[in-house]
Amino acid sequence: MSSEPAIILLAHGSSDARWCETFEKLAGPTLESVPGSRIAYMELAQPSIDRVVSEGVNSGVRSFTIVPLFLAAGRHLRKDVPGMIREIENTHNVTITLAAAIGENPQLGDAIRDVVRQELSRRPE
Amino acid sequence: MSSEPAIILLAHGSSDARWCETFEKLAGPTLESVPGSRIAYMELAQPSIDRVVSEGVNSGVRSFTIVPLFLAAGRHLRKDVPGMIREIENTHNVTITLAAAIGENPQLGDAIRDVVRQELSRRPE
Repeated sequence: MSSEPAIILLAHGSSDARWCETFEKLAGPTLESVPGSRIAYMELAQPSIDRVVSEGVNSGVRSFTIVPLFLAAGRHLRKDVPGMIREIENTHNVTITLAAAIGENPQLGDAIRDVVRQELSRRPE
Repeated sequence: MSSEPAIILLAHGSSDARWCETFEKLAGPTLESVPGSRIAYMELAQPSIDRVVSEGVNSGVRSFTIVPLFLAAGRHLRKDVPGMIREIENTHNVTITLAAAIGENPQLGDAIRDVVRQELSRRPE
């Protein structure tokens, strides 16, 4: 697996452990389906991007793709994360590519519609 | 439509207008498909929950359901939003039901897997 770029599924992170648990459950199908994928948290939880990259480097990976599991891109994805990436690239001498936030894919909008309709149909009158 | 409970699609909100634009695009299929649905922002953007409820009240709606378009529930959905809801219920004399975060529905995890796979297949080698 070490010749293959590692995929980092980036979550925002939270100091609430239950947030991270829900998130990891939500990311479960992706983690199972995408070889070499790992979750990392931007802030407030571990593992950090730096830690996941370090572990990849120790296994011989030099190239990473970060897929942000974010519904929309704001300051975090436009500024904070690119800044973190530059620093981690310099520290570990690796290449990191930042993919678009999953919320920019129209397919996700359709899935959200289906989930909301399902949630609403479950509600008692 | 005023006899039907209004559906509030709750987003976190951001001071970055592009975040809100992406979000509104993402919520587009839901807004088109769920009658009486509106977006509201928890913080940092308008309209707020209070404003959407006020407008609903002005149209004769007394009962609202908030569906959080959040990937996971942390402090915001466990504490901040329920606190806001209690205050708004008292102020406007309405009933507000808080549904589960969309990220708690396993169907969303499957959709995220499909979107991530699609994003990764688009990347140049």
